[in-house]
Amino acid sequence: MPIRTVVWNEFIHERNNAVVREIYPGGIHGAIAAGLREDDAFDVSTATLDQPEHGLSEARLAETDVLLWWGHKAHKDVSDETVEMVADRVHQGMGLIVLHSGHFSKPFKRLMGTPCSLRWREAGERERLWAVNRSHPIVQGVTPAIELPNAEMYGEPFLVPEPMETVFISWFEGGEVFRSGLTYQRGAGKIFYFRPGHETYPIYHNPQIKRVLKNAVRWAHNPVPAWEDVAEAPNVPVEKAPETIEKRGPALHKPGEEGYR
Amino acid sequence: MPIRTVVWNEFIHERNNAVVREIYPGGIHGAIAAGLREDDAFDVSTATLDQPEHGLSEARLAETDVLLWWGHKAHKDVSDETVEMVADRVHQGMGLIVLHSGHFSKPFKRLMGTPCSLRWREAGERERLWAVNRSHPIVQGVTPAIELPNAEMYGEPFLVPEPMETVFISWFEGGEVFRSGLTYQRGAGKIFYFRPGHETYPIYHNPQIKRVLKNAVRWAHNPVPAWEDVAEAPNVPVEKAPETIEKRGPALHKPGEEGYR
Amino acid sequence: MPIRTVVWNEFIHERNNAVVREIYPGGIHGAIAAGLREDDAFDVSTATLDQPEHGLSEARLAETDVLLWWGHKAHKDVSDETVEMVADRVHQGMGLIVLHSGHFSKPFKRLMGTPCSLRWREAGERERLWAVNRSHPIVQGVTPAIELPNAEMYGEPFLVPEPMETVFISWFEGGEVFRSGLTYQRGAGKIFYFRPGHETYPIYHNPQIKRVLKNAVRWAHNPVPAWEDVAEAPNVPVEKAPETIEKRGPALHKPGEEGYR
Amino acid sequence: MPIRTVVWNEFIHERNNAVVREIYPGGIHGAIAAGLREDDAFDVSTATLDQPEHGLSEARLAETDVLLWWGHKAHKDVSDETVEMVADRVHQGMGLIVLHSGHFSKPFKRLMGTPCSLRWREAGERERLWAVNRSHPIVQGVTPAIELPNAEMYGEPFLVPEPMETVFISWFEGGEVFRSGLTYQRGAGKIFYFRPGHETYPIYHNPQIKRVLKNAVRWAHNPVPAWEDVAEAPNVPVEKAPETIEKRGPALHKPGEEGYR
Repeated sequence: MPIRTVVWNEFIHERNNAVVREIYPGGIHGAIAAGLREDDAFDVSTATLDQPEHGLSEARLAETDVLLWWGHKAHKDVSDETVEMVADRVHQGMGLIVLHSGHFSKPFKRLMGTPCSLRWREAGERERLWAVNRSHPIVQGVTPAIELPNAEMYGEPFLVPEPMETVFISWFEGGEVFRSGLTYQRGAGKIFYFRPGHETYPIYHNPQIKRVLKNAVRWAHNPVPAWEDVAEAPNVPVEKAPETIEKRGPALHKPGEEGYR
Repeated sequence: MPIRTVVWNEFIHERNNAVVREIYPGGIHGAIAAGLREDDAFDVSTATLDQPEHGLSEARLAETDVLLWWGHKAHKDVSDETVEMVADRVHQGMGLIVLHSGHFSKPFKRLMGTPCSLRWREAGERERLWAVNRSHPIVQGVTPAIELPNAEMYGEPFLVPEPMETVFISWFEGGEVFRSGLTYQRGAGKIFYFRPGHETYPIYHNPQIKRVLKNAVRWAHNPVPAWEDVAEAPNVPVEKAPETIEKRGPALHKPGEEGYR
Repeated sequence: MPIRTVVWNEFIHERNNAVVREIYPGGIHGAIAAGLREDDAFDVSTATLDQPEHGLSEARLAETDVLLWWGHKAHKDVSDETVEMVADRVHQGMGLIVLHSGHFSKPFKRLMGTPCSLRWREAGERERLWAVNRSHPIVQGVTPAIELPNAEMYGEPFLVPEPMETVFISWFEGGEVFRSGLTYQRGAGKIFYFRPGHETYPIYHNPQIKRVLKNAVRWAHNPVPAWEDVAEAPNVPVEKAPETIEKRGPALHKPGEEGYR
Repeated sequence: MPIRTVVWNEFIHERNNAVVREIYPGGIHGAIAAGLREDDAFDVSTATLDQPEHGLSEARLAETDVLLWWGHKAHKDVSDETVEMVADRVHQGMGLIVLHSGHFSKPFKRLMGTPCSLRWREAGERERLWAVNRSHPIVQGVTPAIELPNAEMYGEPFLVPEPMETVFISWFEGGEVFRSGLTYQRGAGKIFYFRPGHETYPIYHNPQIKRVLKNAVRWAHNPVPAWEDVAEAPNVPVEKAPETIEKRGPALHKPGEEGYR
């Protein structure tokens, strides 16, 4: 059974900016999807901001195994309903790969609980991503350091929670460093933040970056059935306690009553 | 300089429920504040839901070092503005101690990014909290296991991120277990979730629980000045790069332009 | 290609103790290996303390993908050479599953760097293992809580490093709790500590325990080629620096000299 | 009560190498100790390899709150007995700060359980240490990035366990990056690895480095009494179980018997 993968893009700069359009004539989502389709195990489709429900209806999300997220200029235009649905699906087990300027996207901030802020500079400088753990599934098939001739700089401090694993750390020509590949587990869902990518550089055409994204989709895929009631807080009545006990003392809730939320 | 500590309470059950009122005649916040005042280094005050801005104006939060949060029935009545202000202050360095049913409070869910769900049973059963690391500052002065004769059960799975440290794990008479003391770092702020406490049992009068709360306030206190711009993403212009570089390639942003959010 | 799995056992109690022999006539390693062989993807063999090099020659370890370790009475009889070879292979990518009393085995202590101590009681009491994350690959196919009618108690504090993930927490009839399933990454190798198992109870015949062990072998298997030079500290000469630099200042090492170890 | 701090040094290069002797005429330990003495709360002494028991008798370690470790050329000459005593004391609560080439020291490898390997180059290049969390106690009083004009390069991958916190990440002129400040908790003890320092550069005279070391001593100090039996595994007899239980089933151990180690 294929890994059902959706590449989401706000798809604005590619339409409004000639430089970006030339690099990504089919949109950044198109370029990323094309890269992912090199892996036959993936069933890849795309979704964009301007579609109904941003292309991410509840039904479609329910059939998505891994979602990739690109956004930059229009974070605010993503509806809170969509953000909650994406977060719910991550908690249930959908993988999420957040790209570059997506550090400030609503779904990522929602799932991290932190500002996700950083320092930045757009100078076309050289970036080198070092793999911290060469045996990690996400770095297979790439060189010990991935070199990008032109990149936007992102610098520490990066205000995210301590990750499960630091996968990549970037060196920048201008003197900064950045934790460019970070993994998280949130509920049943696995999250990978991956820094590279900027509209005005052809980074998503780079074979090594494409390889990392393919690896990341496989890593983020949780093959287990969705944990649909992950957000529920069921009462375990006294008579169903694993050990035999008797109720004692005063109570706030009546028998069978739901808990407060 | 004292540790400025605010105990927040929705303060509903103590007014509406005779059983609760008898146990906490001055409100749960009153009992907790009385316990904390045993430590002369704390400057303790309280705030409640029904006050203007829930008693948590921006000015007051700016002068709060550690906030304790009790809520149960009225999570939904806490305004989103207050939630954001609390989260912002945690990111800037305010400590936060979330109590018992506060697992479903808006500030805790906002900061965890997960459902924070669990299983529960109100049967007045015995609970025993085991300290996982007896050298941790939060468990000093208490016995290896704290025993509560009557407690509401909370059971795993508890849907929170992997913590920085697991401080307590609870055993319940009815057969369940729960990670009852968990630490997190979010931005500059330290967070401690502490499970014990239920309106119908005198748990916050228990000397060991009081001791844990005093320890937790000291642990959560970050004496460093507030990191006020923690959520900002400043541009580092080319001429201020730590290393001398020259801008090259096309750009999306004009010089001096702010980044997108 | 199958997952080459070796079950190691000190194999003493099954020969010296009639009770144990009756439960595990083919040895504990035999019972565990039989369970693992239910999965066709595994190529399962065994090794024991009394064999030459404890059955774990360098050549055999080099061909082992996942090693399971059972020891209790004879930890001290395992040679330091074997311990170092096991640790080296874990660093290179071999998975390691440490069982029950193996918490005090030399390889586990070597890899954790901590005392790995705990509390214990042999009373045949009931144990219930709660899955903390029901979506984790190691807990697939088992009930939310695994119940063992008779178990040796292990109690917290368990002196190990904070794990990557807490997978199981145990409840004991006598009142204690224990983190019974813990994951670690050490170099390229994945480690799973799994508490259940005691010589005088038929725990490794339990279908749920067998299922967990099969899951754990798949989880611990790193399909990437061995990271053979993981312990090397190669010099990167100036002329091979990623960026062009010139040597300056005084030096301790002559050009081409190896570093100190 | 002062924080009893011991600076340990193998003290070889300062005697054998004229360049090093000129920079550190009183030994590296002397320079570090002088820096720490700027804080009146510390009671600072030193110890060296050539002293009886390397200056680290059991009695002296028992009176040490925080130990700093410098070694490079003579790691092998440190006795295994000393290494075990240092590790034991860390488990009991002594803080440990491991400096630069101490990444390959026996105590650090013993406590990490990993190879602690890395890449290196001695070219006197520029290093810039970025603080990942500006609110961390270890980075107070220093600039957002500490710049060292001449440094030995250490490059990733650095084969250590995922840390509790990544405090510093280094940028190197030659193109590499390194996690230069990492915290760990092992038993009751706190460990800080800090990369800067090389015999042929005056790094320990740098005011910012001195400040980090002073901060680190305070951070690593655990004021709690030593956890002396941290490595013991006491039996909890049936009659002392927290809950009333009756022994059942066969047993391996006789009543009162010690467990195997």
